[in-house]
Amino acid sequence: MSGNSTGLLFSVTSFGESHGPAIGCVVDGCPPGMELSAEDIQLELDRRKPGTSRHVTQRKEPDTVEILSGVFEGRTTGTPIALLIRNQDQRSQDYGKIAETFRPGHADYTYWHKYGIRDYRGGGRSSARETAVRVAAGAIAKKWLKEHHNIEIRGYMSQLGTIEIPFQRWEDVPTNPFFAPDNAIVPQLEAYMDEIRAQRDSVGAKISVIAENVPVGWGEPVYDRLDADIAHAMMNINAVKGVEIGAGFDSVAQLGSVHCDELTPEGFASNHAGGVLGGISSGQDIVVHIAVKPTSSIAQERRSIDKAGNPVMMATTGRHDPCVGIRATPIAEAMLALVLIDHALRHRAQCGDVKVDTPRIPGKIAR
Amino acid sequence: MSGNSTGLLFSVTSFGESHGPAIGCVVDGCPPGMELSAEDIQLELDRRKPGTSRHVTQRKEPDTVEILSGVFEGRTTGTPIALLIRNQDQRSQDYGKIAETFRPGHADYTYWHKYGIRDYRGGGRSSARETAVRVAAGAIAKKWLKEHHNIEIRGYMSQLGTIEIPFQRWEDVPTNPFFAPDNAIVPQLEAYMDEIRAQRDSVGAKISVIAENVPVGWGEPVYDRLDADIAHAMMNINAVKGVEIGAGFDSVAQLGSVHCDELTPEGFASNHAGGVLGGISSGQDIVVHIAVKPTSSIAQERRSIDKAGNPVMMATTGRHDPCVGIRATPIAEAMLALVLIDHALRHRAQCGDVKVDTPRIPGKIAR
Amino acid sequence: MSGNSTGLLFSVTSFGESHGPAIGCVVDGCPPGMELSAEDIQLELDRRKPGTSRHVTQRKEPDTVEILSGVFEGRTTGTPIALLIRNQDQRSQDYGKIAETFRPGHADYTYWHKYGIRDYRGGGRSSARETAVRVAAGAIAKKWLKEHHNIEIRGYMSQLGTIEIPFQRWEDVPTNPFFAPDNAIVPQLEAYMDEIRAQRDSVGAKISVIAENVPVGWGEPVYDRLDADIAHAMMNINAVKGVEIGAGFDSVAQLGSVHCDELTPEGFASNHAGGVLGGISSGQDIVVHIAVKPTSSIAQERRSIDKAGNPVMMATTGRHDPCVGIRATPIAEAMLALVLIDHALRHRAQCGDVKVDTPRIPGKIAR
Amino acid sequence: MSGNSTGLLFSVTSFGESHGPAIGCVVDGCPPGMELSAEDIQLELDRRKPGTSRHVTQRKEPDTVEILSGVFEGRTTGTPIALLIRNQDQRSQDYGKIAETFRPGHADYTYWHKYGIRDYRGGGRSSARETAVRVAAGAIAKKWLKEHHNIEIRGYMSQLGTIEIPFQRWEDVPTNPFFAPDNAIVPQLEAYMDEIRAQRDSVGAKISVIAENVPVGWGEPVYDRLDADIAHAMMNINAVKGVEIGAGFDSVAQLGSVHCDELTPEGFASNHAGGVLGGISSGQDIVVHIAVKPTSSIAQERRSIDKAGNPVMMATTGRHDPCVGIRATPIAEAMLALVLIDHALRHRAQCGDVKVDTPRIPGKIAR
Repeated sequence: MSGNSTGLLFSVTSFGESHGPAIGCVVDGCPPGMELSAEDIQLELDRRKPGTSRHVTQRKEPDTVEILSGVFEGRTTGTPIALLIRNQDQRSQDYGKIAETFRPGHADYTYWHKYGIRDYRGGGRSSARETAVRVAAGAIAKKWLKEHHNIEIRGYMSQLGTIEIPFQRWEDVPTNPFFAPDNAIVPQLEAYMDEIRAQRDSVGAKISVIAENVPVGWGEPVYDRLDADIAHAMMNINAVKGVEIGAGFDSVAQLGSVHCDELTPEGFASNHAGGVLGGISSGQDIVVHIAVKPTSSIAQERRSIDKAGNPVMMATTGRHDPCVGIRATPIAEAMLALVLIDHALRHRAQCGDVKVDTPRIPGKIAR
Repeated sequence: MSGNSTGLLFSVTSFGESHGPAIGCVVDGCPPGMELSAEDIQLELDRRKPGTSRHVTQRKEPDTVEILSGVFEGRTTGTPIALLIRNQDQRSQDYGKIAETFRPGHADYTYWHKYGIRDYRGGGRSSARETAVRVAAGAIAKKWLKEHHNIEIRGYMSQLGTIEIPFQRWEDVPTNPFFAPDNAIVPQLEAYMDEIRAQRDSVGAKISVIAENVPVGWGEPVYDRLDADIAHAMMNINAVKGVEIGAGFDSVAQLGSVHCDELTPEGFASNHAGGVLGGISSGQDIVVHIAVKPTSSIAQERRSIDKAGNPVMMATTGRHDPCVGIRATPIAEAMLALVLIDHALRHRAQCGDVKVDTPRIPGKIAR
Repeated sequence: MSGNSTGLLFSVTSFGESHGPAIGCVVDGCPPGMELSAEDIQLELDRRKPGTSRHVTQRKEPDTVEILSGVFEGRTTGTPIALLIRNQDQRSQDYGKIAETFRPGHADYTYWHKYGIRDYRGGGRSSARETAVRVAAGAIAKKWLKEHHNIEIRGYMSQLGTIEIPFQRWEDVPTNPFFAPDNAIVPQLEAYMDEIRAQRDSVGAKISVIAENVPVGWGEPVYDRLDADIAHAMMNINAVKGVEIGAGFDSVAQLGSVHCDELTPEGFASNHAGGVLGGISSGQDIVVHIAVKPTSSIAQERRSIDKAGNPVMMATTGRHDPCVGIRATPIAEAMLALVLIDHALRHRAQCGDVKVDTPRIPGKIAR
Repeated sequence: MSGNSTGLLFSVTSFGESHGPAIGCVVDGCPPGMELSAEDIQLELDRRKPGTSRHVTQRKEPDTVEILSGVFEGRTTGTPIALLIRNQDQRSQDYGKIAETFRPGHADYTYWHKYGIRDYRGGGRSSARETAVRVAAGAIAKKWLKEHHNIEIRGYMSQLGTIEIPFQRWEDVPTNPFFAPDNAIVPQLEAYMDEIRAQRDSVGAKISVIAENVPVGWGEPVYDRLDADIAHAMMNINAVKGVEIGAGFDSVAQLGSVHCDELTPEGFASNHAGGVLGGISSGQDIVVHIAVKPTSSIAQERRSIDKAGNPVMMATTGRHDPCVGIRATPIAEAMLALVLIDHALRHRAQCGDVKVDTPRIPGKIAR
């Protein structure tokens, strides 16, 4: 396992470079008997794909997925599901400079020193293009979680650069290009992004993801806690620099009497824990926030060095997202789904027949 | 692997409950030939142990470690190193109420529903006592990293409740009970904690950990990125609710022109990345921040329910840390060490013979 | 995972050297709620322990096991079960020669070149003493399989050196020192062993293990087939040189019309497959045979080399089994149990809710 | 990991059904910088492909492999190498009967009960077609082992049904359709197979595989011994029922004074161990023998049952190998290569810098 597989029981093994022939993955461990079609996956891929508004990269990638195995007569068979997405828009260009220099803020320098060779075309393996694979695999996980546990996983942009976006309603999220939970704020976001682009700059974002209806009991103490696996899954998304569960960094300044969620027969009185206690889901909403750094590829000149160690100035031209956070919501949802299905299966393995008389109290919906 | 092992090549398998006979672990994969004694490990354990000041729990645990295997004539043999710490202070008491009710903010409710049985004495497996094992295993990792790569891993408290603690100097850290990098601020911290305790409340903290001299090239894209594994390791520490690498959540509001660290022949111009680019170490300092929630065990009465689902009021008396963050610094250091040694070995496996002509530029020391 | 853990979901992590302070293991993933005591484990350990007849090593080891964790009020809690066996009979002796030379047929030469250091006392980690840990962990697995699936795992010696031992009855197995399924043949075996010992030689053996009542459906194609995992488990027992499932090497000369087990509504017509089809249990008896090589430690002078590469003559004196196969039956049973429980849990994870109308046909009991 | 991945550091994740769109795999962990082309892989695939003589299946599959990722400008980059083989000869036919009944000796019955659904076309996932993927992945492993360690992995048929085939010379192996190491025996083999086919029957075979020049020190005691991982790899090949290392089952009747290989400064005096001592390679030839059962698909009528549990008679018509062992040699070589490269990397990780003064003695070439 050289790092391109994730998940113990529902595992995803990913492959592919930005400008190679294809990207894709093998999903191993999907329970048998679930209806699954390429369309189910395509719907999620289309939420992430480039070119859908002026605020994202204009690369043209239809991201059409083909199911190569593991589905028979419309149902999963329990065998590996291979997904293939051919790369289309491998625009011919002169990679000369990019091959000889290290773009600041990118993985160029580190890949080069690690491997002694790198596919420099579009960032190769380190490209955000790889995240399409996550969304595709996550679509399968989401479907199973919905069908078997009525779990709903939804995300939204909670901050764009300096603009906080208070949650208003889920209905707005799919109706604007920012996954913002409030259409009223969208004009402000658009003006902000237009200005960033005009400055040939980029900006960060904060994404929040919530899973509802997760049953109590998922998560493996002590190292593979549910929240630890979520942190792993989120931090391995390109450009993510921070992860919070529930109150997150706000809990630093909180008193125990405030932070600690009381239990009542009618339910938890609050959800500062973000749905995880002792690494195990509590039945409350799982609440996750992530920090996405600004795109490193900007058209301003920046200092760097070349392969010989000489100083150079370079600007990264081309078709780049001015805020990679804008397309990050479906990716974060997918990663949360992958963690949850893995723990659903792990729980079933060890504790599948546990019976407890104690009533399960309702979770507090909190964000 | 039901969640009690961590690390692919340098793996730690942990066991033990707070009030059982012992806690301990098996460290598998340690390279052979390194000098190792129980004293090496004890030094780190003593930094974490309870009862060292009035600001931490008064439980009396000498935390004496015994090496059961894997060391011969003072050197590691490459075989598993088993570490054993007998529990001493298993104070006899009436666990009646704690057995029948769920302490709010604790794992009681979730363990019960997951397993249908729980060792309620002192939280059993979910007790922070388990973190002693991490410190013990981490001591081995730290020693190897220091000897083979001159890597220095150090942490400090960067915030206590509402009090930010700007970094001043490493020298102060071991000389005060808070791991604060500035002795001048200690009286303020002590007064703050005395007040919290007087209120029978608790408070959170922020811990920062830094690894210096990590070579460029460690980390396995795409899922087992170095930063993702760090996030996993930190979030699986009891009470941690948030993890940041480098600029972390500050990167949300940053412009790309600010965040993105320029490269010059003299070194990186800044370290917003926190030492990781594309999931691979860049040669800069690895910089990690974590949020530790306030202790859930407080002596104030709080609402909860019992096993039958009936409402109860309960206060958690006993010997508890009023701020679990105070003893978290050695634990966070240990977890970072465990991630780094694992990736050191993974790197050696796949890329051990890679040669690159390009000069490696110095890392910027930044915190 | 440097090779001292086995099992994906019910995993055993082993530690300890022959003449170190202790051996033991951590069992992670045991389902919660099962009654378990040290006595349950001790019963199995006593079947393997040395000194029970003149045909095995006279080393005195009570092999007393202590449960350090994972059991509360007599039941498993779902947390790691740590087992500890202190070494008792670490006879003081001069290891000078053994430290400087490589015993032929032993791991001395390979450990030395691999690790550059070795604990030469009694073979250190490579000693068959480590198999006590397998038996202890296997006892837990056996108990769960029996209670949850009525699975019976039993082994016997099917050949001792040149003497084939046809299966007669299970009742005889525990009543003679050879685990022979026929007490009538025991005098012949004793005479044979007495002669081998008189010649200061050793001899091999063949052990057969059978699991009854394994349900159809366990095993993970394509690489982690049930039979592949069994082969792995058996071949990692010290001194094992061959593994067969069902007809094994007899199938080389068989015709398809003979080998292939027909299905009838009353059951399978034969069991050449040994209970596994396509890597998945068929509901028939799982039938496994293993070849155990003769003990390498013999008191005859043999050629070898020392650490400097010079030729030496050496005889291995001390307390050695003249046939390690004699004590191998409980070990092989334990390993089969460990594989089966792991696949029981893996099956439950992925296919726990599969329902099939087709009747399950009875398995043919065949050996 | 639901069983379709193998290898810890050089891992292969396989996918695909016999009559689905494609089969393939993702190879993760290949060291960077090695020259690799589709032709390198194709050469090995062509050794296994069907239709090359009258003694194997007449299915027409060109088995053309496409490299989808992980190779840039003719060299491996250290990122996952995805291999794709489109299925061509998906002959349209009536699967009615095969869909409703269980072919004896096949995985039909077990897949059905495990998953509750099965792709019955050509055996779906349980088809020997999956072994093409192993050969493709193994080709990469073989190339690396040859280039970095001059390791030569070669196999041959050592028995066909009742006909033993004594080893004569490697040169003959590629020049006859049986991989027999003696062309003089080929007419006998051909006559034997013609007779088997005329009887509409099938027969088993024994394959031997040898790896030369494996350095001393590979293999991870105690569970992931080199020989245990080899046993796992071999037993997970379709139709394999037995695995031997070195003397294998012959060691049962051997005396210790015979079996145990003496060491001399000029080399080991024999190789009954098959190149593995204590689970670690000794520098001798790795010698492996496997038993391949007769093809279950025969054109004679056999008893079976249908999905409703009713008795049926069925003959398996179609294009089947009368002896699956005939094409098994390249597969067994590939599996041995996969195990060896994995342990090469594991060794490098833990013991990469071990230095030992002791001279390494030459291995005895023995088969």
